[in-house]
Amino acid sequence: MLTKDFNYTVIPNGVCAAQGFVASGVHCGLRKNKNRPDLALIYSETMCQAAAVYTQNRVKGAPIYVTQRHLANQQAQAIIINSGNANTCNPDGEEKAQIMCQTIADQLAIAASDVVVASTGIIGESLPIELIVDAAPALKNQLSREGNDQAAAAILTTDTCQKEYAISLEIAGKTVNIGGISKGSGMIHPNMATMLCFVTTDAAIESTLLQQAVRDVTDETFNMISVDGDTSTNDMVTVLASSLADNTLISDSNSAEYQSFVQGLYVVLMQLSRKIAQDGEGASKLLECQVTGAKEKSTARFVAKSIITSSLVKSAMFGQDPNWGRILCAIGYSDGDFAIENVQVDLASTKGRETVCLNGSRADFDVKKLESILTEDEIFIYVDLGQGEAKATAWGCDLTYDYVKINADYHT
Amino acid sequence: MLTKDFNYTVIPNGVCAAQGFVASGVHCGLRKNKNRPDLALIYSETMCQAAAVYTQNRVKGAPIYVTQRHLANQQAQAIIINSGNANTCNPDGEEKAQIMCQTIADQLAIAASDVVVASTGIIGESLPIELIVDAAPALKNQLSREGNDQAAAAILTTDTCQKEYAISLEIAGKTVNIGGISKGSGMIHPNMATMLCFVTTDAAIESTLLQQAVRDVTDETFNMISVDGDTSTNDMVTVLASSLADNTLISDSNSAEYQSFVQGLYVVLMQLSRKIAQDGEGASKLLECQVTGAKEKSTARFVAKSIITSSLVKSAMFGQDPNWGRILCAIGYSDGDFAIENVQVDLASTKGRETVCLNGSRADFDVKKLESILTEDEIFIYVDLGQGEAKATAWGCDLTYDYVKINADYHT
Repeated sequence: MLTKDFNYTVIPNGVCAAQGFVASGVHCGLRKNKNRPDLALIYSETMCQAAAVYTQNRVKGAPIYVTQRHLANQQAQAIIINSGNANTCNPDGEEKAQIMCQTIADQLAIAASDVVVASTGIIGESLPIELIVDAAPALKNQLSREGNDQAAAAILTTDTCQKEYAISLEIAGKTVNIGGISKGSGMIHPNMATMLCFVTTDAAIESTLLQQAVRDVTDETFNMISVDGDTSTNDMVTVLASSLADNTLISDSNSAEYQSFVQGLYVVLMQLSRKIAQDGEGASKLLECQVTGAKEKSTARFVAKSIITSSLVKSAMFGQDPNWGRILCAIGYSDGDFAIENVQVDLASTKGRETVCLNGSRADFDVKKLESILTEDEIFIYVDLGQGEAKATAWGCDLTYDYVKINADYHT
Repeated sequence: MLTKDFNYTVIPNGVCAAQGFVASGVHCGLRKNKNRPDLALIYSETMCQAAAVYTQNRVKGAPIYVTQRHLANQQAQAIIINSGNANTCNPDGEEKAQIMCQTIADQLAIAASDVVVASTGIIGESLPIELIVDAAPALKNQLSREGNDQAAAAILTTDTCQKEYAISLEIAGKTVNIGGISKGSGMIHPNMATMLCFVTTDAAIESTLLQQAVRDVTDETFNMISVDGDTSTNDMVTVLASSLADNTLISDSNSAEYQSFVQGLYVVLMQLSRKIAQDGEGASKLLECQVTGAKEKSTARFVAKSIITSSLVKSAMFGQDPNWGRILCAIGYSDGDFAIENVQVDLASTKGRETVCLNGSRADFDVKKLESILTEDEIFIYVDLGQGEAKATAWGCDLTYDYVKINADYHT
C-alpha cells in the first residue's frame, strides 16, 4: 500500500499526537485490580469528521448499535470506552450504552449523539453502569495532552502491553499528525474491523473520504491479522479528524493529498495490527506472511490468512519446528486460484532466509540454519505462487500453552 | 439420518466383520517404535464394488491420485496403508505409491489397479519404499479374519487408541455386516472426506449407489467433525462391498433396502467420527453440538461447525468454564440465515442440562449445576435457532496444553 517516495516521522503521544485531542483513563471498578484503569476517554476540542468500521459478527455488542446511530451524521467529538465487560447479549445493553454516552456528554457539555461508545470484556454479564456514572467526573477532570498512556492502558483486557503508534507526515506543505491506540489479545480474527482501535488526526478531510480510507486501510491491516480465528462481537475501528492541521480540505480520492493520507493511516493501522498479533494471547512469536505472485488479490489474501490461522503452523512455530509441510497443507485448503506445483516457500528471520519448498516439493535446505532462523521472535513466511502480480500480507502469532491457559480460566 | 424403526446390532471384528474380508498389520520400520505396526492390509477374497471420497485440499498426497485412478472402474480387492510418512509433496510420490500397489498385488496375485493405497504421517519427507517392499510378504502371510486389530493399529499416528466399529443389520431378510477402521488425531477438519477411514461390507449394492451413500453419509459424519481446523492433504474414506451377504442387489436409491444400507453406514461412520473427535490431539473431552430450528440445513451445519471449531469455546470446555458468551460469539460469526434474538443454548452432560441463553440473552441458570455438568468427558451443546425445522450435529474436542505440546514437536 506504500509508494516508494512516501515519507513520515514516528512521533510520541499516541492518540494525543494530533492537534486538538486530549485523553484520560481511570479505574472505575469494572476490573478487580485497582491498579489497572478500566475506563477511557478521548475528547476533541472541536467537532470532528468521524468514520468507523465494525465487526461482521451477527452477534454485536450493544455499544456497536449505539455508535452506529451516533455516527450516522459522520461527526463526533468524544469516545468513551470501558474494559472488563463487553455489554453484549444483555437485554438492557443499548440502554446502558446510551447512559454512558449521556453521562460523559453532560460532563463535557456536548450532545450525547456526538459520543462514540465501546466496551470490551466478558460477554453476557450485566454492565454495572453505576460504576461508570460515578467515575465520569474524574474521567473528565483528568483529560490532558499527556493522557494517551492512561487511555491506552484502560482499554486493555488480557493484553500484556499498551498499543500506541503515531506519525507525522506532510500533506501539501502542512504537517498532519495521525495517532492511534488499540487493544487485542484474544477473540482476534477480524472481519471488516477488529477489536478496538481509536485513531485521531488533525487532517482536514471530507467525511466520506475518511470513511473510504478507514475501510480500505482496515482491509489491508486489521482484517489481515488472526490470533485464534474467533471474530469478536465488539470489533470497532474509529477515526476522528479535527481539521486543525490547516491543510486544504482533502476532497478528491484521486488527489496526491488523499493518497498521502491513506498511506499515513496505513502505517498507523499496520503498526497497531502488528502489535495486536505480536501480543496475541500467550504468543511468543510474531508471524508475518507475505504472499506474492498471485493471479488475484483475493487469492493472495486467502493464502496469507490461511497460513497464519492454521493451528498446526502456529504450534510448529512455537516449537521452532521447521515442519514446512504444514504450510503447504494450509495453502492447499485455502480458497483462491493457484497451482501448487508453482509454489515456493521461504522462511526467514534476522538470522537469515531459507527456501524450504520449490515447485510444490521439498527444497534442498540447511536444517541447522532453518532451526536457527526459527529461534527468533519475528518469523517471516514468504510464499510465491508464481502465477501473477497480486500480493498480500497477513500477521499472526504462535499457539502456545499460555493461550490455552489464559482461555481455560478467563471466566472464573 | 436415522428413522425410528431402524434396528442394528453392534458386532466385533471391525473391518473383518463383513463376510469375505481379512486384514493384517506389521511393523516395517517407518515408525521408530518397533512395537507399533505401521503397515496395514485389507483384502477381500472376491472382487468388490468400491467407492471413496477424498480431501478437498488442493495439496493432495500422492496416494490420493493413484487411488483415484484405480477406483475409476469402481472396483477394488485390496487396500494397503502405511503410517509414519504421508508421501505428500515428494517429486517421486506417485511412482512410490504405484510401487506399493504393485508390490502387494504381486503377493496377492491380483492386478495393481485393484489396490487402494493410502499414507499418513509427515508431509514432505521422501518415502523409504524399500521398507514397504521388504515387509510385503509378511503383510500378506499374516492376513486373517482376526487381523482387524493389527490393521487398525497400523494406520494410527498420534492417535492414542484404535478406532473400530462394526454392526449387522437386516436388509430384505438377509443379514448384512458393515465394519470400519479409522484414524484421526490432528490436522482434522474434513471437507468431503476425513483422514483415513476404511469400511468393508458384504452387502450387494450397485457401485453408483455405493458412491452416493458414501458421499451423503460422509457429509453428515466425517465432514461434521473438527479437531483443529486444518484440512489434511491425505483424507480418504473408502468402502469395499463384497456382495457375499447374498441380499438382492440394491439398485434403487428410493428402495427401503437402500435406506437401510445408508442408515447402517451412517451408524458406522458416525461412531468412527465420534471416536476421532474424542481422540483429537491432546483432547480430554468430546463435544457434541446439536443445532435445531434452522430455516436451512446449511445454516444448521455452519452454526454447529462454527461452535465446535472455535478455539475459545474449546479452551473454555477444557477449563470447565461456563463461558457461554463464546458460544454466542461463534454462532454470530458463522455463515447462514438466523436471528440471534431467537437463539436458545443449553449445555448438558450425564450430570444434567441447563439453559444458558434464552432469546439471545443470558438465561437464569444455576452456576453450580452448570460447573458440575462441565466436569464430564462428553459435553452436549444444544442450540435452537427457533426459526425452522432443519438440524445438524457436529463433533469436536477441547483445546488443551497437550494439543500444543504434541504439535510443537511432532517433527523432531
